[in-house]
Amino acid sequence: MCPCASFDTMPDRGSIIAAAARIAPYIRHTPVLRADLGGDAPVDLKLELLQHTGSFKPRGAFNRLLSTSPGGAGVIAASGGNHGAAVAYAARSLGVRAEIFVPATTPAAKVARIGSYGATVVQGGDSYADALQASHRRQAETGALEVHAYDHTDVLAGQGTLGREFEQAVPDLTHILVAAGGGGLIGGIAAWYRGSVLVISVEPEGCPALHQALRAGQPVNAPAGGLAADSLGARQVGALMFPIAQRFVSQTVLVSDSAILAAQRLLWDQFRLIVEPGGATAAAALLSGRFQPPPAARVGVVICGANTDPAKLVDSGSSLQCVAARPRPRPDPGPS
Amino acid sequence: MCPCASFDTMPDRGSIIAAAARIAPYIRHTPVLRADLGGDAPVDLKLELLQHTGSFKPRGAFNRLLSTSPGGAGVIAASGGNHGAAVAYAARSLGVRAEIFVPATTPAAKVARIGSYGATVVQGGDSYADALQASHRRQAETGALEVHAYDHTDVLAGQGTLGREFEQAVPDLTHILVAAGGGGLIGGIAAWYRGSVLVISVEPEGCPALHQALRAGQPVNAPAGGLAADSLGARQVGALMFPIAQRFVSQTVLVSDSAILAAQRLLWDQFRLIVEPGGATAAAALLSGRFQPPPAARVGVVICGANTDPAKLVDSGSSLQCVAARPRPRPDPGPS
Repeated sequence: MCPCASFDTMPDRGSIIAAAARIAPYIRHTPVLRADLGGDAPVDLKLELLQHTGSFKPRGAFNRLLSTSPGGAGVIAASGGNHGAAVAYAARSLGVRAEIFVPATTPAAKVARIGSYGATVVQGGDSYADALQASHRRQAETGALEVHAYDHTDVLAGQGTLGREFEQAVPDLTHILVAAGGGGLIGGIAAWYRGSVLVISVEPEGCPALHQALRAGQPVNAPAGGLAADSLGARQVGALMFPIAQRFVSQTVLVSDSAILAAQRLLWDQFRLIVEPGGATAAAALLSGRFQPPPAARVGVVICGANTDPAKLVDSGSSLQCVAARPRPRPDPGPS
Repeated sequence: MCPCASFDTMPDRGSIIAAAARIAPYIRHTPVLRADLGGDAPVDLKLELLQHTGSFKPRGAFNRLLSTSPGGAGVIAASGGNHGAAVAYAARSLGVRAEIFVPATTPAAKVARIGSYGATVVQGGDSYADALQASHRRQAETGALEVHAYDHTDVLAGQGTLGREFEQAVPDLTHILVAAGGGGLIGGIAAWYRGSVLVISVEPEGCPALHQALRAGQPVNAPAGGLAADSLGARQVGALMFPIAQRFVSQTVLVSDSAILAAQRLLWDQFRLIVEPGGATAAAALLSGRFQPPPAARVGVVICGANTDPAKLVDSGSSLQCVAARPRPRPDPGPS
């Protein structure tokens, strides 16, 4: 692979601005919360977990569907969960049929979520790779438009709109922490900033695909396990994002599963946010001390996904049991 | 009671601006999310549930503690939950001891939350009124500073800072929906806007204290039960807020418990927000159709509290079971 060749396919700022205009009617402009995460200075949390379907994925999905209008055969995608939900949601919004292939390991609840948007869900195979193969065979039959989870320039440009929104909301950021799996989100954000802000990849120790790719000088197969594998467990980063990362991702930081879980718990306990493991990974770099901002840094953190089971999260730590059970009618209740 | 006399005690905009400056180092400037709640136009959600302790209450608590510096005896308050947590949190932040009285009906989890901030919790009596009486007896012994849950001008001015923030974020609102119990929050917000925006009180059918007071022309005892009694179940609105409401609350809307529960479920399902019944009450007015904005209205909704048990909320509706169970390590996971 020659990274230089791929670099030409990097979305430029114009294509990200165009994507933002294209998808604006369909996505939420998610808010930013300035918050104390225990460091010397407050940080800005981009609350992208409040996006439709509970993750950032609709940005790329809508941009892909709106850039290349699907025919009557609709769209087709393979996914472990969040991307499939986003494609199903986008397809429903645009009146297009969707077929989503997921492996047997996708939790029943995520399958139900995808189905709730009216998509046909085909579950089978042991892995994402199996689901992807099956989707390719099916695509050859139907002629549906394939929506890749990250390795497409329209998807990258769509995810890049998050970077543009973040810059508009907080123009003086110096560092942005972003979780990376296949690399669509961080690739889009890095393509937006083009080095004007230091974009830092945070990856679980169990799925360090970008970390290993940057060390090897090319995308390589990496482990893809652990707590956040559900959303960050890509075996390889995308070919299109890799040269962007080589140029514009300043640093990679690895965090442990226990640091991710601690971040999830803190985000519920102190912020009342339900955050999935992959969504809490970027914050975990700060909270664990694995990333220590230099003096005068102005740090942004992307909180990119919410799709986990709140019951599990809250039950798992007794110190989190600080919330009321279902309110009971009281004979003479007073003000709270 | 002569409302005219009390009206003089209404916080003016200057006192709310002063409160905002006073409490700024201690509270979060909570974000606003523009969202589609199914009506003709999007609405602006003030995400005050992301405030410290999971409700708006620290605004008033900090303003009270910072306006009248407590002596060595610290502060004392009676509460059913959210106010007690806020006073405990504020006291800890300011290095002051706190004693919080709660009735036996306060859930163990809320008691634990208050205690987790280092406050002494005294639980006893069947009702808030009992806890309040006990706190008064204790206050006479200790000389601690009493922090009333809503009926104090500093508390009203503190809650009014939410109105100021909302106006700064969305200057062209025409209507604001606010849940009302004892009336501290809506009183503060109405005192900020002073009629420049239509402030609408939304109350559960089971605890309509402001609705009945405005009908009667004075605060009267009202029922205080149902799903949201935990946070909105005041038997009477505050004497200080009542004349503000007479002048600047344009309308009251009652919603059923089932509408509140439906709003809670929708806010999780479509927004990934865990919202307590009282926090979802204002949104329920829109979602149920009980409040129908006039054409060209620009509606704001205050989402004011998160302190409920996510497990209960999500378990209660199978249609909400659209989220993943605890992620499992996968042998060959793919991207999401």
